Amino acid sequence: MKYSISFEKLLELFPTSKVEGSTEQTKFCGISALERATSGDISFLGNAKYKKLVPTSNASVILLPHSYTGTPSHNQIYLKIDDPSVGLACLCKFLEKEFAPSPPAEIHSTAWIDPTAKVGERVSIGAFSFIGKNATVGNNSKIGTHCHVGDYSVVGESCQLYPSVKLLTHCYIGSRVTLNAGVVVGSEGYGFDTVDGVHEKIPHLGKVVIEDDVEIGANTCLDRARFEETRIGKGTKIDNLVQIGHNVRIGNGCLIVAQVGIAGSVKFEDEVVVGGQAGFAGHLTVGKGAKIAGQAGITKNVTPGAFLKGNPALPFKLSQRISILQKRLPELFNRFDAIESND
Amino acid sequence: MKYSISFEKLLELFPTSKVEGSTEQTKFCGISALERATSGDISFLGNAKYKKLVPTSNASVILLPHSYTGTPSHNQIYLKIDDPSVGLACLCKFLEKEFAPSPPAEIHSTAWIDPTAKVGERVSIGAFSFIGKNATVGNNSKIGTHCHVGDYSVVGESCQLYPSVKLLTHCYIGSRVTLNAGVVVGSEGYGFDTVDGVHEKIPHLGKVVIEDDVEIGANTCLDRARFEETRIGKGTKIDNLVQIGHNVRIGNGCLIVAQVGIAGSVKFEDEVVVGGQAGFAGHLTVGKGAKIAGQAGITKNVTPGAFLKGNPALPFKLSQRISILQKRLPELFNRFDAIESND
Amino acid sequence: MKYSISFEKLLELFPTSKVEGSTEQTKFCGISALERATSGDISFLGNAKYKKLVPTSNASVILLPHSYTGTPSHNQIYLKIDDPSVGLACLCKFLEKEFAPSPPAEIHSTAWIDPTAKVGERVSIGAFSFIGKNATVGNNSKIGTHCHVGDYSVVGESCQLYPSVKLLTHCYIGSRVTLNAGVVVGSEGYGFDTVDGVHEKIPHLGKVVIEDDVEIGANTCLDRARFEETRIGKGTKIDNLVQIGHNVRIGNGCLIVAQVGIAGSVKFEDEVVVGGQAGFAGHLTVGKGAKIAGQAGITKNVTPGAFLKGNPALPFKLSQRISILQKRLPELFNRFDAIESND
Repeated sequence: MKYSISFEKLLELFPTSKVEGSTEQTKFCGISALERATSGDISFLGNAKYKKLVPTSNASVILLPHSYTGTPSHNQIYLKIDDPSVGLACLCKFLEKEFAPSPPAEIHSTAWIDPTAKVGERVSIGAFSFIGKNATVGNNSKIGTHCHVGDYSVVGESCQLYPSVKLLTHCYIGSRVTLNAGVVVGSEGYGFDTVDGVHEKIPHLGKVVIEDDVEIGANTCLDRARFEETRIGKGTKIDNLVQIGHNVRIGNGCLIVAQVGIAGSVKFEDEVVVGGQAGFAGHLTVGKGAKIAGQAGITKNVTPGAFLKGNPALPFKLSQRISILQKRLPELFNRFDAIESND
Repeated sequence: MKYSISFEKLLELFPTSKVEGSTEQTKFCGISALERATSGDISFLGNAKYKKLVPTSNASVILLPHSYTGTPSHNQIYLKIDDPSVGLACLCKFLEKEFAPSPPAEIHSTAWIDPTAKVGERVSIGAFSFIGKNATVGNNSKIGTHCHVGDYSVVGESCQLYPSVKLLTHCYIGSRVTLNAGVVVGSEGYGFDTVDGVHEKIPHLGKVVIEDDVEIGANTCLDRARFEETRIGKGTKIDNLVQIGHNVRIGNGCLIVAQVGIAGSVKFEDEVVVGGQAGFAGHLTVGKGAKIAGQAGITKNVTPGAFLKGNPALPFKLSQRISILQKRLPELFNRFDAIESND
Repeated sequence: MKYSISFEKLLELFPTSKVEGSTEQTKFCGISALERATSGDISFLGNAKYKKLVPTSNASVILLPHSYTGTPSHNQIYLKIDDPSVGLACLCKFLEKEFAPSPPAEIHSTAWIDPTAKVGERVSIGAFSFIGKNATVGNNSKIGTHCHVGDYSVVGESCQLYPSVKLLTHCYIGSRVTLNAGVVVGSEGYGFDTVDGVHEKIPHLGKVVIEDDVEIGANTCLDRARFEETRIGKGTKIDNLVQIGHNVRIGNGCLIVAQVGIAGSVKFEDEVVVGGQAGFAGHLTVGKGAKIAGQAGITKNVTPGAFLKGNPALPFKLSQRISILQKRLPELFNRFDAIESND
């Protein structure tokens, strides 16, 4: 994507910003990290740990927090704003809208749409996509190539399904939902009863419900419920390669990072945050606002607001203290041997 | 899926059940968890930990084990059976057969079937699916949309391939096998020889064999063998997002939960059970009936019947005892300092 | 794949080999592990741990290192070479070329190629594949079935994309790159700013660059950069189900085993080796030639050449020593109680 933005436009986007320094550049054509930016680029300080890179950056404009102290280089502007990360996102949204506008809605000639399906206004359906019997696609939604919207499934308004998303039958997607490439919604749950040594399959007759404003990462899988429903609450964001088991209920505004595994019938209350590769045993409840560190193994209910780490999971500070003491185990054993030999 | 079932039909399904209480309802139209069930629903006690929810449940019928003691509410029936989980599965199977019968077999007009492929009787092939040269699909099998059955591959009888299953060349699938959406069978194994600092690829000329009655979860990957075969034994059930490396041999009746990783040339004997996110280093043997806890890291052979946990993996009870003692490390260091200062 | 190779041909492939023993077999039709090989098969000793299987192997030819001491059975040849693993790879490459030659290049009649796309010479494009606007596919590249090459994306020369690979827009793939089935390149990065409790999406306008000679395993995901690029260096090999976050930069010649997760903006220098299921927190640098054990959790920068294990990650030897001492914690607590009661 090629783009350029004038200094006047930048000031329009950040009307309350404070300007320091000056530059001969009138247009900026790139956004780059502090250490890789060159003349003509905009850069930003999004994370305090990179503060030492600001003085040597060659960016023409640097978005900085008001608290930053220092002087711009020759031919460089400091643009001080409340939150450079939010500012950058705002700038990116402007550029995306201006320079990468969505193509006009189009239903590709190779797509297969069942005559009983209901397709709204201004809908795009990509090449080789399949819309099943009695399925619904709401206004302004974009279905990529090679997607499958199963019989009786519903996609709300203004959704984006990237290539190869698979919604099996009876999956209900709200509005403004983004499903990245390869997402599977409504796979059979993993449930077997072992009778006389043979694993007999339990049929999964339930559905999957994804509420408004949810985003789900590439190749993530959500199993359908045994009966009832698997549900993802409003505004929850799920990363790539996550496993959501059957009958799981995730609350609103949760953040679930890549490769997390959530076994069947787990319940998350609202605003739970889970680091990458953490795992949850079945049938647990995780309280509102709990934070779970990456790679943690959760086998018991979690109280609201708890911050857990490790497997078995412990309160974050205790876990860190134990990690430090573990490193001292060789020393402890030595001291211990010394005491015993003294006796 | 909408359905209803009469009380008479329920008694037919559970001829040896014991009935307590009575209800005015004559038809039941939902299956729900104890705490969410309303009048007209059937519920069940599948896990003893939910016992306290039975007295307050509004379900019209509750499937309970014979050992349950208590009295049904007004307008409520207790149906006591040997195993409520098995009972529920049996009920679900009946409902599925009765109310969600399979559509008639159909080969979609957009599917591509090579003229040299052999397709059996009553086979369904979904939209945009590809059946390669000399491939075989057995009687009564159902191939979903966007599937790829590679050259020389064989799908047995009464299999179900959900959308976007990819069987590359020379993959041999038995009968009554279920492959969920996005499963990849026969990807290149990860094998490189590093010669003069360059990672040279080892060609993978082997095949993949999946025996009868296997089920595999969404987006799981099975690599083809270097030579010989990668094999999954009869009746084994594998969950979503699992990695099966090249030359792996899994025995019969194993259970492998989501996101497990099994490196190349590992051998599982029969009836091994593995919890989610566990990992196995290459070239190991895991003995018959061994149990591996979730997130365990296995780097040595496992004896038959062992139950291991943690990384490095230890016998379950020892691992739990050590976890408890680790929590007491801060106390131990304090007591230790006290003794030393006493001396 | 059926094949046979004569003893003369074997000697041609290994001109500096040393022959011991003799066999009546003149053609060899299989390659098998030592314990499963039968008469007519070639086998090999690739890993010293299998040495004890050599004397009882029924293989007609066994590739062995010069250091192996022992005598071939009746009707059996020992072929001693420098490195039997490399030798086997060389043999496999010969067989692949001779007996499984690539079919002639073909663009399938069902493929959709945008009129503005540039497709080179001798390119194969599989059934139901989609090549977008202004996309490029270089000479001799093979695109499997159900692939998506997005608008403005570039695939170099002699690449292989297996079925259902998804390259979204602005993805740049070098030459001789292999992407296994279901790989997603260019998914939206996981980046949200939480403003007034709502997770606002940060648009991802950057690209993905994959350099020459890279191989990527099935269902692995690579997110596009927020701005700038996500980059995989020359000759790096990535296994199945790996997560590569936005703005990640992987150096040359790295090896990344299955189910590894790498969070946003991590930088790997060259020749880093990572075991399966390891995880990396965001914004870290991993130094040249560092080795990370499977399931390790990396939350700090890693110095070049380091070898780390565990979570929190420690130097390999220290981590192993602590694991051994942890097993002795029950004993330590007992000894401690004894001392205290003595006082």
